[in-house]
Amino acid sequence: MTERIARYLQEERPESPCLVVDLEVIAENYRRLHEALPLAAIYYAVKANPAAPVLEVLRDLGSRFDAASIYEIEHCLRLGIGPERLSFGNTIKKSCDIATAYRHGIRMFAFDSGPELDKLAEAAPGSRVFCRFFMDGAGADWPLSRKFGCDLDMAADLLTRARDQGLQPHGVSFHVGSQQTDPGQWDLALGKTQMLFTTLKERGIELRMVDLGGGFPAHYLTDVPDELGYGSAIMAAVTKHFGNRIPELVIEPGRGIAGDAGVIQSEVVLISRKSYADSVRWVYLDIGKFGGLPETMGEAIKYRIVTPRDGGPTGPVILAGPTCDEVDVLYQQTRYELPLDLQIGDKVEFMATGAYTSTYSSVGFNGFPPLREHYI
Amino acid sequence: MTERIARYLQEERPESPCLVVDLEVIAENYRRLHEALPLAAIYYAVKANPAAPVLEVLRDLGSRFDAASIYEIEHCLRLGIGPERLSFGNTIKKSCDIATAYRHGIRMFAFDSGPELDKLAEAAPGSRVFCRFFMDGAGADWPLSRKFGCDLDMAADLLTRARDQGLQPHGVSFHVGSQQTDPGQWDLALGKTQMLFTTLKERGIELRMVDLGGGFPAHYLTDVPDELGYGSAIMAAVTKHFGNRIPELVIEPGRGIAGDAGVIQSEVVLISRKSYADSVRWVYLDIGKFGGLPETMGEAIKYRIVTPRDGGPTGPVILAGPTCDEVDVLYQQTRYELPLDLQIGDKVEFMATGAYTSTYSSVGFNGFPPLREHYI
Repeated sequence: MTERIARYLQEERPESPCLVVDLEVIAENYRRLHEALPLAAIYYAVKANPAAPVLEVLRDLGSRFDAASIYEIEHCLRLGIGPERLSFGNTIKKSCDIATAYRHGIRMFAFDSGPELDKLAEAAPGSRVFCRFFMDGAGADWPLSRKFGCDLDMAADLLTRARDQGLQPHGVSFHVGSQQTDPGQWDLALGKTQMLFTTLKERGIELRMVDLGGGFPAHYLTDVPDELGYGSAIMAAVTKHFGNRIPELVIEPGRGIAGDAGVIQSEVVLISRKSYADSVRWVYLDIGKFGGLPETMGEAIKYRIVTPRDGGPTGPVILAGPTCDEVDVLYQQTRYELPLDLQIGDKVEFMATGAYTSTYSSVGFNGFPPLREHYI
Repeated sequence: MTERIARYLQEERPESPCLVVDLEVIAENYRRLHEALPLAAIYYAVKANPAAPVLEVLRDLGSRFDAASIYEIEHCLRLGIGPERLSFGNTIKKSCDIATAYRHGIRMFAFDSGPELDKLAEAAPGSRVFCRFFMDGAGADWPLSRKFGCDLDMAADLLTRARDQGLQPHGVSFHVGSQQTDPGQWDLALGKTQMLFTTLKERGIELRMVDLGGGFPAHYLTDVPDELGYGSAIMAAVTKHFGNRIPELVIEPGRGIAGDAGVIQSEVVLISRKSYADSVRWVYLDIGKFGGLPETMGEAIKYRIVTPRDGGPTGPVILAGPTCDEVDVLYQQTRYELPLDLQIGDKVEFMATGAYTSTYSSVGFNGFPPLREHYI
């Protein structure tokens, strides 16, 4: 936790639960990624944390933005971010939303299928389009289904068709999986990318851009390589596959910029055992899966947890949220240990919760209000 | 789908996606449950669907209400529902929320642990309290962890302690699991309940109330017994265990009242394949796990799906939501078949989605607004 967040929590005593984001960390993470990959244009993944203060900091630093919906696009435009800095990166878009984005001046769109290409050709003629191909996401904490991307053969044909339909086949994208801890995954993906570039060149199409996706991790329970480690692994792979004809590079960090910048403070509502024989305590907090921590689904993301009584002896706990829903349990399989003298009313903090928390929270499940947010 | 909902969708053409709830079905479900279990007081589980029109219909029919949070309590009070008709049924409550509820006149509280009892004794002196004991939820579609309830020995001791702490040990509750399709589960639970009543009587405490919980199902893919089937199975078990000294009975239906009353209409955004060899189509809708269908987590609840092209030949599909999140897939393991001539832009309806949908939806994940709601 940064000193600024600690001071804010101590001095302001905001109502629990809440998220506090340090905007200086947002800026610092942006600069670090930029230094680690100076050749790459940064398109911040708005969905990670779309709060206006976050976007404004990044806007002023020169960032570009990857939007998942027309709503995110219009949010960015309202904040004075020009359409030339926006990419409509979702491969699943309604025709009417593509048309609206086009009318706003957006000229960069993702796709991964023929039917989506048809929509783009009709609703966003002449735009730059890039095709997402499929990676299996090995090594990522937050799993990849096959929801996005197509296979390489199809990608090659679709990019060819894009030209024939009056679009600009601009490049390709892939995503190695969010919270990716193995930089070697980019080598694999860039190898495939290079094959695509070659195939398309044989068909008379010069692709220009490689969107390396996101996947830059925040700091949760397990150690991860730092930005420079990622940067050099990625640049080594780019150079290996493209030599000195390096394409335009794009990255789409979300978690890697906003994750570490935030802390969620919650409060212990109840500590109990289910029977006299129970050795494990149930610790119930005032935040759970539906209040901003849905990435604990399947216990995928394991946050670091801080309590005011850390340092003394600990014992195993099951951590659960405050709703009447049985599935609102944060960690049951993952063995968390918390201080034995933890008390009801104690504040418990979740580290690195600046991304994929606030907008995920429910509008009012069990009547609980959405996660409160403070940007400092 | 009721005729009224069908007509509303056809005439009003509300923006997609949206939930339409037929309030006449709410009333009808309430009456049916009341007829099936005339001896039981109905405490509607507000969390299932807390929309004011739903609560108003039930208020006027004489329903009582089970609240999961102080927010739900204050919502009910604002709708003119008196505190004597409210139960604070969550076993996880902040002391300040108990105190506020008590100040509002609430005198019925659930608990399942010693620390919670201490809070109640201090913040809600003299109130009726009931102890939730643990059931394993076999036969329920929506699983039960051990999040709620304690074992029988502990329940007996806690109810004894409640008296010693100046509270009124009022009874017990259990929950056989939401969307419970095996009425025999109530027999098992009522057997345990009777043992608790006997134990407490030996300690000079006369328990009065049995809260049979919820678990009354809505109609999803699999067939379920009707209300009368449940009613007679439950009353047979009550009589078997309590003879003619039948305690006050309480039920807490949520899904059983609101589930069947609603339909979610969504729209097909994209239909695609991932490779030329793919035999399964990916069908992307404008609603997903984060827009109001989180009960598809682990594919637990399998909704019936209706399309305008039903009747012709079908083929296997994977159903996914519109967000850029890989986990936003509705059904991948469960084999759904949809018409082969399904088109982008077609409306697709999810049946029996009146409960556990609207308030579950995210405040704005990927920028998408919360689920629109229409009560007719």
